[in-house]
Amino acid sequence: MTHKILAPGATIGILGGGQLGRMLSMSASKLGLRAHIFSPQHSSPAFETSAFSTTAPYADLDAVKNFASSVDVVTTEFENIPLETYEHAAKFAPIAPSPKALAIAQDRLAEKRFLTSHNIPVAPYLEIAREADIVSAIYKLGPDGILKTRQLGYDGKGQIKLGLNVDADEAIKAYGGEPSIFEQLVSFVMEISCVAARDYNGNIVFYDTPVNEHRNQILAESKVPAQIEPELEKLARAYTAKIAENLNYVGVLTAEFFVLGAHGETPLLVNEIAPRVHNSGHWTIDACSVSQFDNHIRAISGWALGSAERHSDAMMINIVGSELDRWQDFATSKSALLHLYGKGEARPGRKMGHVTYLYKKDAGEI
Amino acid sequence: MTHKILAPGATIGILGGGQLGRMLSMSASKLGLRAHIFSPQHSSPAFETSAFSTTAPYADLDAVKNFASSVDVVTTEFENIPLETYEHAAKFAPIAPSPKALAIAQDRLAEKRFLTSHNIPVAPYLEIAREADIVSAIYKLGPDGILKTRQLGYDGKGQIKLGLNVDADEAIKAYGGEPSIFEQLVSFVMEISCVAARDYNGNIVFYDTPVNEHRNQILAESKVPAQIEPELEKLARAYTAKIAENLNYVGVLTAEFFVLGAHGETPLLVNEIAPRVHNSGHWTIDACSVSQFDNHIRAISGWALGSAERHSDAMMINIVGSELDRWQDFATSKSALLHLYGKGEARPGRKMGHVTYLYKKDAGEI
Repeated sequence: MTHKILAPGATIGILGGGQLGRMLSMSASKLGLRAHIFSPQHSSPAFETSAFSTTAPYADLDAVKNFASSVDVVTTEFENIPLETYEHAAKFAPIAPSPKALAIAQDRLAEKRFLTSHNIPVAPYLEIAREADIVSAIYKLGPDGILKTRQLGYDGKGQIKLGLNVDADEAIKAYGGEPSIFEQLVSFVMEISCVAARDYNGNIVFYDTPVNEHRNQILAESKVPAQIEPELEKLARAYTAKIAENLNYVGVLTAEFFVLGAHGETPLLVNEIAPRVHNSGHWTIDACSVSQFDNHIRAISGWALGSAERHSDAMMINIVGSELDRWQDFATSKSALLHLYGKGEARPGRKMGHVTYLYKKDAGEI
Repeated sequence: MTHKILAPGATIGILGGGQLGRMLSMSASKLGLRAHIFSPQHSSPAFETSAFSTTAPYADLDAVKNFASSVDVVTTEFENIPLETYEHAAKFAPIAPSPKALAIAQDRLAEKRFLTSHNIPVAPYLEIAREADIVSAIYKLGPDGILKTRQLGYDGKGQIKLGLNVDADEAIKAYGGEPSIFEQLVSFVMEISCVAARDYNGNIVFYDTPVNEHRNQILAESKVPAQIEPELEKLARAYTAKIAENLNYVGVLTAEFFVLGAHGETPLLVNEIAPRVHNSGHWTIDACSVSQFDNHIRAISGWALGSAERHSDAMMINIVGSELDRWQDFATSKSALLHLYGKGEARPGRKMGHVTYLYKKDAGEI
């Protein structure tokens, strides 16, 4: 595969203006590239760190055309950019990752089918196309499961947990006819993720595996290294590489896993694919000399990937909603490496920033 | 000394829009602060990474007033901001470092006198106020010396080296009546620098000492650690702390030293003070988790200083003028950590970027 190596001063077009776009744009600036942010929101966190911006709805395909025509490569900070928007941009500029990667990550059913077709294990699931499918799914997979809309779900949005407190009738009421899947609830030891970067030539680097903890279905904390057997990390990387290769993926890709235990028949299940830089990789800014944001920009620019090596152990804690009120504790701490996203209103559930703490490498459990 | 701790979203006003302002503004953004760049140049490297910008001559005191009134603290990327501009800004906002630090660093004679008054050794020098002083200085200090203008000298500008090839007559011709000093040429083993950050409470942290090599009087390369005796590093830090304390300095301050040898009566001479982040500290972006830029922003914002600890050995190489033509070598290297400044024209002597290489800590000489 031939590709262009972007020269100093080239422009990276980023669809989405949130914190991921912001951190991507800072990496671009560091490398002497310019970021052009396309976002529907007037006061997007990424605007103030970027050379250029376009404010327009994703559905405004003329604006998308102008944007894509003015940049040297287009990428996204978010898998839920409307596919039509993304495919339209791809007509006017090189794009990475590919629209196919986005299409799969946007649809839980397509994602599960993609993974299953490549023998990558996922939690047992069934498609829910009509009310009766819910009853049938509960009959087949048991009542402990999660009803998830196929599209536009993240941070726990569009999910209903069934089981002891919610029965089929209630689920049917809440369901509302949205194309969905029913996923069996699996009991797992921990959640980990694999953040990988792949270039146009198929070279791939993996960041060390963090263990992730969620609160209210939002990532609360990532710690690296995860206390897992080396073979589990190896397996997570093998699955991630397989996903990336089969999508002919360029850029940073993240796979989230449930760890069922190293010695079972199925040690790991893929929970979700994110075709982008990922919250569970934010510690790479502080604990690696080349962060996930740097490597995403390097990859899509046709540059050589930088090392994913980690110089420190790290704990990353998200600052969500009113937790930002604690900013003074962080600002007056010598060890808190604070990252704030410049967002105005600290609404409940809104990711306002994160803080990383570093520890001497391999000094023991954090 | 009481001081305010700047809250998320506060604005850092930066006088100067070059690469130092650009890297400072990226640190501000990372911390959730906003940068407002004041620069006379329309296409300043720092503009495209900053939330706000003002383009106006430094002499436009109304613009300076508007700028300073709109920010929460003012700082500078450059010691040669006209003092009147800096003092005017100080009327409308807290300012760090203080105008006094700038005044001293702007005038080689004032700087030498300040250092001497605090028993910090400098190369023997004499004031040159008129032509006859040149002859007299050569008589007293010998012909090997450098005639330097008191003001506006950096990267070798405004300097005439006397000695074998240039005699007093030629120097007098070139001198042109500019207030100057004549500085004896000292023979030194190497040049090192001490980059320190000091907060409002007088806490100070020191980055490890790099050894610096110049080409055509422009910094070419900084390597850390310098292969020097620990007592020399200790002495460099003691001098730097003394300078910072006596200026009641807040922010990052750099002192450049000539190493004469650990065992002489005068092991170190101060060559120059820079009241700002410094080219010889650029490696801190990659080899430390808190860079000199981060710590300058933290200090002037009233935040706690972060650790100056270094996780790797490092070599920083400046990319000057047409050396930028080699960008593809850097972009396609896995180990080159490239930083480009987004400057348009690669004029001779213009700093276009730098590249850092990291090495396992203390693995031996780089």
